[in-house]
Amino acid sequence: MKTLKDIGEHSVIALLTANLKTVGDDCAVLPLDAQYDLVLTSDPLIQGVHFTPETRPEQIGWKAVARVLSDFAAMGADPQYLLINLVAPPEQDVQILEKIYDGVSRVRKRFDVDLSGGDLAQGPNLELHVFGVGRVPKGRALLRSGAHPGDILYVTGPLGDSFKSGRHLTFMPRVTEGKWLRQSGFVRAMMDISDGLATDLRHILKASKVGADINSATVPLFGTLEQALYDGEDFELLFTVPADEADAFDVQCLEHLEQKFSRIGSLTEDVEVLTLDGAVLDRKAYEHFR
Amino acid sequence: MKTLKDIGEHSVIALLTANLKTVGDDCAVLPLDAQYDLVLTSDPLIQGVHFTPETRPEQIGWKAVARVLSDFAAMGADPQYLLINLVAPPEQDVQILEKIYDGVSRVRKRFDVDLSGGDLAQGPNLELHVFGVGRVPKGRALLRSGAHPGDILYVTGPLGDSFKSGRHLTFMPRVTEGKWLRQSGFVRAMMDISDGLATDLRHILKASKVGADINSATVPLFGTLEQALYDGEDFELLFTVPADEADAFDVQCLEHLEQKFSRIGSLTEDVEVLTLDGAVLDRKAYEHFR
Repeated sequence: MKTLKDIGEHSVIALLTANLKTVGDDCAVLPLDAQYDLVLTSDPLIQGVHFTPETRPEQIGWKAVARVLSDFAAMGADPQYLLINLVAPPEQDVQILEKIYDGVSRVRKRFDVDLSGGDLAQGPNLELHVFGVGRVPKGRALLRSGAHPGDILYVTGPLGDSFKSGRHLTFMPRVTEGKWLRQSGFVRAMMDISDGLATDLRHILKASKVGADINSATVPLFGTLEQALYDGEDFELLFTVPADEADAFDVQCLEHLEQKFSRIGSLTEDVEVLTLDGAVLDRKAYEHFR
Repeated sequence: MKTLKDIGEHSVIALLTANLKTVGDDCAVLPLDAQYDLVLTSDPLIQGVHFTPETRPEQIGWKAVARVLSDFAAMGADPQYLLINLVAPPEQDVQILEKIYDGVSRVRKRFDVDLSGGDLAQGPNLELHVFGVGRVPKGRALLRSGAHPGDILYVTGPLGDSFKSGRHLTFMPRVTEGKWLRQSGFVRAMMDISDGLATDLRHILKASKVGADINSATVPLFGTLEQALYDGEDFELLFTVPADEADAFDVQCLEHLEQKFSRIGSLTEDVEVLTLDGAVLDRKAYEHFR
């Protein structure tokens, strides 16, 4: 018998989604009408995995929704509607649930997203399953597959130490930045960082058939470089811009968002080879089932 | 401290969804474009609640998706896309998961619905959270609120004994019938029966501000009348048709669907009063948290 633990999360997702039409990006992008594509995503938030019994309930609600909004940010899409399945044991304190929904309300209102439905079910463990629906102008979603060799690699903010610092419970999803980055026309590929810079960057390398070199001195850090590479749950955006447009891009960012994003490396022609200051970086990553 | 067990499932849903824009129907119906409304729903399927460790895995997958498709049927809507969050413990046998997805594939392909994404997470209990996205011509979704006093009450098939017989794992969602019923123009209010005829009918009575009398001799049964009234998980459609159009409706059903649906009672002016053969029926219903 092979268990999830034996084969790891990503293998199971690959196995189970073998015949999916849209796989690999942060959201599914599907035809909607003449003007727009439909953008769909779902994320679970599970006690014992994504939060503990000690986590403040408002932060549970905030994180559950903020993760889904970060998926939309990663595509440069507009989130519009949320549905939430809540699982809780019969002995669950209802006041805790109300506080969780306060957190849900705070983040969804900030980004003008409707809570449109959901369900409640009995189960042994407290969980939220958040489902998001949104849209993006037809054919304009930013995918992981658009990067070219030579592109400059950017990140929207400092990485690492998100778990220990508690930042993973209070982060601001980069919805505004993601949408502007798409509209700017400079960005070729984008995703959000949920599993660590090294792990997630490999998804862009694979989807775009490129390599990358990270310049360690330029990676903005909250903790150590190793934490930035492997911790995850940063929910900053990772994206690429053509090298000859990067200066103009920086100027536009300052003008429109009043900030500059960090250039942390560049893409190469060595397909799926990831280097750090020129030295090959071995695979080491947090996988949920290992 | 008040627990879920103290206040019951429906009270919690009411509490937590107090500021939702669309609540109470089987799906949320939201504006999409000039031609269509967007239809959204989500349903959890949880080991120990909706199935047991002994349930055949193909049937777990079938039921998880069929329940969501039944929600679309209840609105007369077209399901288009599914996302599935799967929760499983690390020691989960992967072969079981593959078989669950076989069940998912069989039912979704039967109704031409795409599996468009989802996520996998670690948790103590096997669960599927299925999110569905679809559409319905603008303003045409069949709601619970459209019934009038005098309407004839119909059901699409026999009720009761769904748990013990195992029918709750293999039922065919009434997607084809639901869509045709909407298109026929005869139906005023509709929902699917998931909590038993008596419990679910009260939702129509409340939403439509009407009463109803059930004619017990006419209720099509798999088991006893009590099972039909209170067991639930039948996933047949419950709907109303104006009395003076019911004969013409029956003729159309025979012509287009090659079947007649059962007339099981009629609606009255006594708001929220439910009677069985003229005698008031007391409230007794399966509530998940009690």
